[in-house]
Amino acid sequence: MAAHKYCTVPVNPITQEAQAQQKEGGRKMKKLINDAQDVVKESLAGFAAAHADLVRVHFDPDYVVRADAPVSGKVAVISGGGSGHEPLHAGFVGAGMLDAACPGQVFTSPTPDQMEAATKAVDGGAGVLHIVKNYTGDVMNFEMAAELCQAEGIDVASVVINDDVAVQDSLYTAGRRGVGTTVLAEKICGAAAEKGMDLKTIADLCRRVNANGRSMGMALTSCTVPAAGKPTFDIGDDEMEIGIGIHGEPGRERKPLASAREIIAGMARAVISDLPFKNGDTVIAMLNGMGGTPLIELYLAYNELAAICKAQGITIARRLVGNYITSLEMAGCSVTLLRADEQMLALWDAPVLTAGMRWGI
Amino acid sequence: MAAHKYCTVPVNPITQEAQAQQKEGGRKMKKLINDAQDVVKESLAGFAAAHADLVRVHFDPDYVVRADAPVSGKVAVISGGGSGHEPLHAGFVGAGMLDAACPGQVFTSPTPDQMEAATKAVDGGAGVLHIVKNYTGDVMNFEMAAELCQAEGIDVASVVINDDVAVQDSLYTAGRRGVGTTVLAEKICGAAAEKGMDLKTIADLCRRVNANGRSMGMALTSCTVPAAGKPTFDIGDDEMEIGIGIHGEPGRERKPLASAREIIAGMARAVISDLPFKNGDTVIAMLNGMGGTPLIELYLAYNELAAICKAQGITIARRLVGNYITSLEMAGCSVTLLRADEQMLALWDAPVLTAGMRWGI
Repeated sequence: MAAHKYCTVPVNPITQEAQAQQKEGGRKMKKLINDAQDVVKESLAGFAAAHADLVRVHFDPDYVVRADAPVSGKVAVISGGGSGHEPLHAGFVGAGMLDAACPGQVFTSPTPDQMEAATKAVDGGAGVLHIVKNYTGDVMNFEMAAELCQAEGIDVASVVINDDVAVQDSLYTAGRRGVGTTVLAEKICGAAAEKGMDLKTIADLCRRVNANGRSMGMALTSCTVPAAGKPTFDIGDDEMEIGIGIHGEPGRERKPLASAREIIAGMARAVISDLPFKNGDTVIAMLNGMGGTPLIELYLAYNELAAICKAQGITIARRLVGNYITSLEMAGCSVTLLRADEQMLALWDAPVLTAGMRWGI
Repeated sequence: MAAHKYCTVPVNPITQEAQAQQKEGGRKMKKLINDAQDVVKESLAGFAAAHADLVRVHFDPDYVVRADAPVSGKVAVISGGGSGHEPLHAGFVGAGMLDAACPGQVFTSPTPDQMEAATKAVDGGAGVLHIVKNYTGDVMNFEMAAELCQAEGIDVASVVINDDVAVQDSLYTAGRRGVGTTVLAEKICGAAAEKGMDLKTIADLCRRVNANGRSMGMALTSCTVPAAGKPTFDIGDDEMEIGIGIHGEPGRERKPLASAREIIAGMARAVISDLPFKNGDTVIAMLNGMGGTPLIELYLAYNELAAICKAQGITIARRLVGNYITSLEMAGCSVTLLRADEQMLALWDAPVLTAGMRWGI
């Protein structure tokens, strides 16, 4: 389909000034890349070369599907969004999780033709669930793709994830942003699909996951979008941004650097009080790295989160510690808690075989 | 045992000046930590809280053992070294890989009493293999621990990994440094132990892995040891260090920043020509991140490595792309190739269940 048919809304539009600066100013950013314009395609090519046993990568339009797609009679689960958040989403394509991922340019919504082609490629006759992070471009383009597919007789349901408690509205987003709970929703709904549940049941489950999940992030440093060539925002050597978005959107406050204990306590307080999570709740927790923070710090931060949950009578039944939804090389972390019922825990434990998450197989 | 009995050689000694600077100069480094002196213990506590199903963590002396240790009648496989390289080594403790890991302070050798206690804790009566990265402190302390254990009747074999082709001698190291091949040796020898092979056979296998593995790394940025409080080395905005060590030791050359294509080609050339790897060889490849480089770049870099191997008739039969042996938040990557025979490939494919690597279970 011709690209001009679609309204493509870049999540993070690259200004002409930035492009000019990049061309004139020479190379300032320190990245393992070739041409800034080719980063996504070349990275996808590497992903395809590394994981041919798990996925197939299609180019023009770009999308990633599990190697055995379409799976006949199974609901397909799709997500997508701007690149730069790896392993989200392509790293979660495979048995027990996503059937397809649609990667846009860095921090830029994929186009409806990517989503439409991916939806058709994985439809096994039982319908397709679109899991959409709440960013205006993503929501608009997934909606358009859903309408096009429905017009051709494919049953499509969409669930928007909007779990970020940091701010009500944001740059690029009306309402709350969709962040860490997306990872958990993809795992749980992917397992539900693998077990043969129907589209309506899985969409309801996905809404339930979203309704019970809350997240908040923070940054110690900015990141640099390759095509922009300079940091997304400026931040002082002694400052941090609390409530940051995954594209570097402003958060709640810019504060002096604090200890991990204070940082995690502040974010946990915001997350816990929002739902609110209560004494006696059982949760799946994610202590997520933004891409540039090493594991030694993430485990230290998880130690703080675990102590807080314990003190408040919240049981962490399952957890992830590591880089799952990132912002390029940004240093920082995010906290996600999902109040989980027995069904969610059982689906969490179900086998998953993807590049970024695998167990039970 | 009293600590003074041992010669503890810090891999990266913290100067009194650095300590004074940290105390006087206030907080400059941007890390998710509390007190710089507590980083390793607090991170280990978080690791223990996150992975109680896989491991037990012992403090004073600090070591990590698999949850079901000791496994009676099985050879135990141990490694260890300075912290800051996570997931190495604690992230590789579990069924099918390491029985124990001994984490030292950041970039500092663990002490012999850690290694001795860990060896005793996992000895199941069939002997213990120490896999040691070639750094003077690590080698000396593991030797001392081996002697102490042998004196008490435990059969200990040691294999030193020295796969880094970048430089012949180095800061902290006589001879070649031990880097990426350590990850592959731990997986392969851990699988061999799980299959019931005896100590001599596994030690010989480990030497064969070391003899057939070669690595080289590079850095775009330095890292900052928490207790030092400032970057390990200075590097210009338009420079990179080729052949870097995992503690930021000097490499082969400081060069102007280049494209991923040039960087990977240069490292692959050095690695391939050293063994040398030949047309027709089958390898296990690792494109490893140094901790601060995001996955989108690592897959792009892997794309380059895959193309080079293909052009030279070298078949990548298995691969890892991600952060496996890191240098805190350093941006950069390393390339490891292991010429693998059928036995190594079969052991590679055997089940592994650790925090940092899991499949087949």
